[in-house]
Amino acid sequence: MLDTVGFIGLGIMGLPMARNLQRAGHRMVVQSRTAAKAATLVEEGAVAAATPREVAARADVIVTVLPDTPDVEAVVAGPSGVLEGVRAGALLIDMSTISPGVTRRLAARLEERGASMLDAPVSGGDVGAIQGTLTIMVGGAARDFERAKPLFEVMGRHVAHVGGIGAGQVTKAANQVVVGVTIAAVAEALVLGQRGGVPAETILDVLGTGVAGNRVMELKRQKLLTHVFDPGFRAELHHKDLGIALAEGRESGAALPVTALVDQLFGVMKRKGWGGEDHSGLIRVIEELSAQRTGSQ
Amino acid sequence: MLDTVGFIGLGIMGLPMARNLQRAGHRMVVQSRTAAKAATLVEEGAVAAATPREVAARADVIVTVLPDTPDVEAVVAGPSGVLEGVRAGALLIDMSTISPGVTRRLAARLEERGASMLDAPVSGGDVGAIQGTLTIMVGGAARDFERAKPLFEVMGRHVAHVGGIGAGQVTKAANQVVVGVTIAAVAEALVLGQRGGVPAETILDVLGTGVAGNRVMELKRQKLLTHVFDPGFRAELHHKDLGIALAEGRESGAALPVTALVDQLFGVMKRKGWGGEDHSGLIRVIEELSAQRTGSQ
Repeated sequence: MLDTVGFIGLGIMGLPMARNLQRAGHRMVVQSRTAAKAATLVEEGAVAAATPREVAARADVIVTVLPDTPDVEAVVAGPSGVLEGVRAGALLIDMSTISPGVTRRLAARLEERGASMLDAPVSGGDVGAIQGTLTIMVGGAARDFERAKPLFEVMGRHVAHVGGIGAGQVTKAANQVVVGVTIAAVAEALVLGQRGGVPAETILDVLGTGVAGNRVMELKRQKLLTHVFDPGFRAELHHKDLGIALAEGRESGAALPVTALVDQLFGVMKRKGWGGEDHSGLIRVIEELSAQRTGSQ
Repeated sequence: MLDTVGFIGLGIMGLPMARNLQRAGHRMVVQSRTAAKAATLVEEGAVAAATPREVAARADVIVTVLPDTPDVEAVVAGPSGVLEGVRAGALLIDMSTISPGVTRRLAARLEERGASMLDAPVSGGDVGAIQGTLTIMVGGAARDFERAKPLFEVMGRHVAHVGGIGAGQVTKAANQVVVGVTIAAVAEALVLGQRGGVPAETILDVLGTGVAGNRVMELKRQKLLTHVFDPGFRAELHHKDLGIALAEGRESGAALPVTALVDQLFGVMKRKGWGGEDHSGLIRVIEELSAQRTGSQ
């Protein structure tokens, strides 16, 4: 028999993920800051709960998909939070992208209640969430991973158990480091080409054939060529994720000098008012740093 | 009838490139700092010349494959150089990776003699040179490109005319920016994983499935996992290439903050005595920056 699944956080990622679980036959108890977001799921048979505590009291497995570390802390450990209602033997699966350190601390709090936790951040964006093709990076105990696996297989295509609690978040942070730094690399290459008379299309075509080839150049090609940076993945979220990577590096002792610089550039992008654009719009920062003053000097 | 091809520089790249041209039926006039390197080509019918001037005096097309900017300057414009012997109507094809600015200045000097120049740096390494599968990035006039195309097609698989004189070098510099910065990105991701308890193999497997995917993770996988950094492409050459990119950016007004930082890290790698290792060995620098002092504090 399928578990009752509690689901907290019905945003651009959470809603389609919850819908996929519901369509796979799970009984759903859902909760979101904006109650209206639960409406379509409730029409299809889900129960709406008023608080995370109420979700926890009704479910064997609780999934959280929330924007940032403080949101997960509040939902799990805050007033009317999961910890107040959680059953012994229950499993919390946090699929948000948050701090590995906070993850480990929340897992310890759940353990005190006889419950357990997996961290299972995803990549693949809203399209992957809708299509059930996410990559899911899972940290936690093997028995918990096995228990959650059928749910992951509904929501994702590449599901990897990468280590103990927090390891999923560490892997996601590493992923965001590579994607963010690659975007910066491609941006600098394109600006170097631009100013040296080589069109962006040529740079992308030629570099794509060799060791320089990467998925950022493939997937962001149109955005980089047209300079229309509709998200996609918002730069402000990538900035948040690099903040997580840097905080984790500070805690674990990993030196991340290049990540630190790219984090600064994403910070500039936000302060320019471009934080809502796709992360590939980072090239606008490099272009602005390269622009020559045209008025009086 | 095939041109007589002059070929200057018979190192790890130049020798197999010259051999491929000779096997394709070209009459070769060859010259190298180390005369012995011409021996095998001479056995197969090439003429050995004593100086670049002598090569230029005997050839319609002159190919140079040399380590760095000063080498090309000396071979072309130095004593007994190409400029002293070059015929009107001849074509110099520089396939070294050097400064775009110096390239443009040498092209102007050749033009004064009624000769012309293409810059045609390559990527693909010694394996690509041997197999004739190099990527060749060509800058210069369209008529010169068409004239040289049959030679390029013997030496390479992806041949792209990317713009006017110097544009090949700009494209190669952009390529080296993306490869170098990607290596740094992967290095930081792996060290973050390492210190957070996620094995390198897991990081590479998971990141390879998504937007973080890149050719560096594929091609350097074994080196990164085993920490045996036999070249491959030597770190000291990549450091040279980033120096070219930064000098070009300084001249053209392209801001390259991330490239500048990665250039510093390759500089550290050289000073540690690791410049002869594969460029993917940059991870050793990040690891050393992350290492904790184990003795007395």
